[in-house]
Amino acid sequence: MQLSHRIEHLTGGGSDGWDVYHRARDLIAAGEKVVELTIGEHDIRTDPAILKAMDDSARGGHTGYAEVPGVAALRDRVADRVQACSGVPTTRDNVLITPGGQAGLFSAHCATCDPGDAALFIDPYYVTYPGTIRGAGARPVPVRTRPGDSFRPRAADIAAAIVPGAKSLLINTPNNPTGALYDRATLEGIAQVCRDADLWLISDEVYDTQVWEGAHLSPRALPGMAERTLVIGSMSKSHAMTGSRCGWIVGPEAAIGDLINLATHTTYGVPGFVQDAALFALDQGAELEAAVAAPFRRRRAQALEILAGQNALHALPPQGAMYLMLDIRPTGMSGSEFANALLDAHRIAVMPGESFGAAAAGHIRVAMTIADDAFAAALKTLCAFAATRV
Amino acid sequence: MQLSHRIEHLTGGGSDGWDVYHRARDLIAAGEKVVELTIGEHDIRTDPAILKAMDDSARGGHTGYAEVPGVAALRDRVADRVQACSGVPTTRDNVLITPGGQAGLFSAHCATCDPGDAALFIDPYYVTYPGTIRGAGARPVPVRTRPGDSFRPRAADIAAAIVPGAKSLLINTPNNPTGALYDRATLEGIAQVCRDADLWLISDEVYDTQVWEGAHLSPRALPGMAERTLVIGSMSKSHAMTGSRCGWIVGPEAAIGDLINLATHTTYGVPGFVQDAALFALDQGAELEAAVAAPFRRRRAQALEILAGQNALHALPPQGAMYLMLDIRPTGMSGSEFANALLDAHRIAVMPGESFGAAAAGHIRVAMTIADDAFAAALKTLCAFAATRV
Repeated sequence: MQLSHRIEHLTGGGSDGWDVYHRARDLIAAGEKVVELTIGEHDIRTDPAILKAMDDSARGGHTGYAEVPGVAALRDRVADRVQACSGVPTTRDNVLITPGGQAGLFSAHCATCDPGDAALFIDPYYVTYPGTIRGAGARPVPVRTRPGDSFRPRAADIAAAIVPGAKSLLINTPNNPTGALYDRATLEGIAQVCRDADLWLISDEVYDTQVWEGAHLSPRALPGMAERTLVIGSMSKSHAMTGSRCGWIVGPEAAIGDLINLATHTTYGVPGFVQDAALFALDQGAELEAAVAAPFRRRRAQALEILAGQNALHALPPQGAMYLMLDIRPTGMSGSEFANALLDAHRIAVMPGESFGAAAAGHIRVAMTIADDAFAAALKTLCAFAATRV
Repeated sequence: MQLSHRIEHLTGGGSDGWDVYHRARDLIAAGEKVVELTIGEHDIRTDPAILKAMDDSARGGHTGYAEVPGVAALRDRVADRVQACSGVPTTRDNVLITPGGQAGLFSAHCATCDPGDAALFIDPYYVTYPGTIRGAGARPVPVRTRPGDSFRPRAADIAAAIVPGAKSLLINTPNNPTGALYDRATLEGIAQVCRDADLWLISDEVYDTQVWEGAHLSPRALPGMAERTLVIGSMSKSHAMTGSRCGWIVGPEAAIGDLINLATHTTYGVPGFVQDAALFALDQGAELEAAVAAPFRRRRAQALEILAGQNALHALPPQGAMYLMLDIRPTGMSGSEFANALLDAHRIAVMPGESFGAAAAGHIRVAMTIADDAFAAALKTLCAFAATRV
């Protein structure tokens, strides 16, 4: 039976650089010991106090349909959080709770693009971006950034990428996979293009609590942008709640109203007990967020020290998020060649840059998601391996 | 800022018969006592043993990303369940766990229809159906049934409704709102049309444990249908887990493979602890399902007795699901007029048939979702009210 063209072509086709990831999984399944540095997930679990709040909520009776827009108290709390860090007046009517950040990304594209419209996104990118846009029936249009710009987009490059039917631009700061944090000038350039070309800005800010240099700035705070920005947030990275699937979209009230309607027809809300757990977690304030971010901050410091002691690899010091982007061009290998050879030689699994777009070719992404000692040892091995190939 | 045409026109427009529902909510919010018979939700909560299984899973560490297709053990369990009641060989590769039945309905339409394609559905219908189809970018095409046929569709009517670009037909048995259970002859007629016109059949079977007369038959079991049927299931109605948002799609392996890919880009899986709770619940077997269904079985019997003692209303005895469809045409009122007048006179809230499509005009839907005594009293009042209007 014929399936839709949309679903059959969701991920483009051809090699996507994920073969090394699958090879690592297969080795692990076959009983081999592999150092797993591919996936963006904490090596800690959700705090037991948060799980207790979830259990209290469930046993307290919050097991029926929750309101589709989200539990009012959580919407209020998210509004407060977003207002506090952006300065933009925000109420619950600007907030839709979603079953995770990915659902927010998908819904935001459905809300802004009709089938056949074009949706811009920055390359390198989080791996689901192009498929998310195709899933919404739109055409993904990458905007390439340059390693020499620390992978921050130039306004002129975005403007040049605009095609007829372009309706939205998706950005991500702090950035996965590059660790880039967009500074004010970069964001002002982005905002100017969006205003000039009448684009929606979809701003994925799920790493907003993982900032190692400078400060996170939400483009929603820039002049004239609150009315054309949809911010995607999530409990996953900030509170080690990846498995709880709880996120949000913050945007103009009219857009959120329509997005609530879309949610009624696509997911029908988020478990009430999960939302109550999220509210509890947010109520713990910055201390818990800092504690969840702390391991990545430590490992980043470790990594910079290790990398300073070698010259086979160039490192872009991550300003945020839980990854290290390494420039392996001095080895003359592609990211995929390097990652596969490293897996063969040392059973260390990293992601080829190509997995995240053409702009990340010649790079690898290393997730800082294992215990400090093991992480340091793996990175030293990786550097030594690179040195043999330069 | 302009939103997409899709999202702005998701629910059609014009009155949708939900004004009485919103009026009832407003009255309750204003402190009035209203007998609430509009919504399809149990008056019990999720069993504490299921919630304990969820807590055990979460505290046991299942708080990270769950596998996007679903936890293997739950996929196996759902496959067993579906195979047992259909006889069709089914494995985990035929199963995708979804964040609720609504997400399954939406994904199934994305998988079968491209933007601009037509998706058929049976009228009367669950209220989200047309918007779900529009959300997927497709055109909703209703197939009207007749009260005189107990709202079971005729194959000829389905065949006559097929338009160019038709890709799918959505059915629901046991049926919300009508309580109809499709018999073998009806399903064979449906299957024949699907095979002849090369349509996918999307079979919403979320009420499959609430059968009061006859036996539920899944059309997936009919000759040549397993390859063109996507079954939508859910824990919501069968296990009083509406708020847990856990459902599934069962279908051909290739379709499920593509649907897993779509899930990666739209929702990124279902909480592992929720899936473990669902597995525990399914492992309790038929006894728990019968216990969850029992209150509706009792109230249905009450209702038939009450209705037998009057002649102002015609009742279609529900063969399944948790609703009572009453034919109020003897009153000369529309469903909406009747429901509003009943709310005015007696503070009893029911849904006008029109909310569920043109085919249900002149009817009201009464949810059997409050305690037996209160339900009987409300139904008696409703009948007496109708008698004054005949």
